[in-house]
Amino acid sequence: MISLEQRVLAKNDQLAAANRSWLAERGVAVLNLMSAPGSGKTTLLVRTIDDVGAEFGLTVIEGDQETLLDGERIRATGCSVVQINTGAGCHLDADMMARGLHELGPPPRSLVIVENVGNLVCPALFDLGESYRVVICSVTEGADKPLKYPQMFRGADLVLLNKADLLPYLDVELDQFVTNVELVNPAAKLLTISATRGDGLNAWYEQLRELIPADLNAN
Amino acid sequence: MISLEQRVLAKNDQLAAANRSWLAERGVAVLNLMSAPGSGKTTLLVRTIDDVGAEFGLTVIEGDQETLLDGERIRATGCSVVQINTGAGCHLDADMMARGLHELGPPPRSLVIVENVGNLVCPALFDLGESYRVVICSVTEGADKPLKYPQMFRGADLVLLNKADLLPYLDVELDQFVTNVELVNPAAKLLTISATRGDGLNAWYEQLRELIPADLNAN
Repeated sequence: MISLEQRVLAKNDQLAAANRSWLAERGVAVLNLMSAPGSGKTTLLVRTIDDVGAEFGLTVIEGDQETLLDGERIRATGCSVVQINTGAGCHLDADMMARGLHELGPPPRSLVIVENVGNLVCPALFDLGESYRVVICSVTEGADKPLKYPQMFRGADLVLLNKADLLPYLDVELDQFVTNVELVNPAAKLLTISATRGDGLNAWYEQLRELIPADLNAN
Repeated sequence: MISLEQRVLAKNDQLAAANRSWLAERGVAVLNLMSAPGSGKTTLLVRTIDDVGAEFGLTVIEGDQETLLDGERIRATGCSVVQINTGAGCHLDADMMARGLHELGPPPRSLVIVENVGNLVCPALFDLGESYRVVICSVTEGADKPLKYPQMFRGADLVLLNKADLLPYLDVELDQFVTNVELVNPAAKLLTISATRGDGLNAWYEQLRELIPADLNAN
């Protein structure tokens, strides 16, 4: 089983490298957005499209086990989106990503956000060819999550602590969250946000501005 | 890949059947507790041990990717617990369960609660030999989760909607949650609870009483 898993991951890494070349040729940046189910990925995405989607030529690839619900929420904003249903599968992989990108056809020098399947374990293993990895954690999930799902947090460029508006009603210490992220991944940036209320979103948009190719940024 | 997955699952089903025989011989009931990360499995478990652990001769198997944190929270209650770390793995399987049961040595005519790895996808595929499947969903995760992770909800005997104490601060309709559970699994029982505040826990304990062998119940 282990050698098979290694072969599957090696094959995925090859396809991810091909995606990365394809994206680089077009000056397209890809952000892989991962979290547990219900941490607020889609809500953040809808708000981001409304606020800065036009600035980045933003398009979206939506991963879900089943339903078109998230894709429909994105499409309702007017943003281009491709929905990928994984069925029994628990993560997107580089092959699905390649097919999604070809169907989506993102404009040159733009940003694609990929909303992965809600899962703090499996998506961490599968490189999609992205340029940036973001993990969202809801403060309602408790401060121990970075320690309990270390592969996911170790691979993150940015950790978003979402649903900060609920902190007054929770017995959760924000300091402990921050300490635990730093323990697992001292290099990760960390922002506390509320996608519904808007806290911290300007700092999130600043991060997005750093991702996109300089040519687009200058426009 | 598909035929390999079928062989892995077929092998798991054989081992789960062996677990089921082993448990039946001893009159031990096993409850498989599954949820997304941070939905409140461990908090519910600690409260359950405190309130009714002695009544059921309750013992625990804890599944986590890494850390002994949950096992330590259970051990602090005085309850017997075996911690299984899955490393990169995303679920418990019947082989881990067999080893956990042998190490735990649950008393005859008792209840074992298994806290699975926090994941709404993969654990649904792996029978452990349990007698009862419970899915916990936090109301903060949003009402669409039964539709988006249908395999998990379809396999549940009981769905617990946890963190009901946060409902006043959320833009989430409890009715929609209930409707979506019924759409995916009309046979599932459903309880709304707050593991921290205590709402609905007596009904949960009544469900546990129905699981354990009659001999123990009579004591």
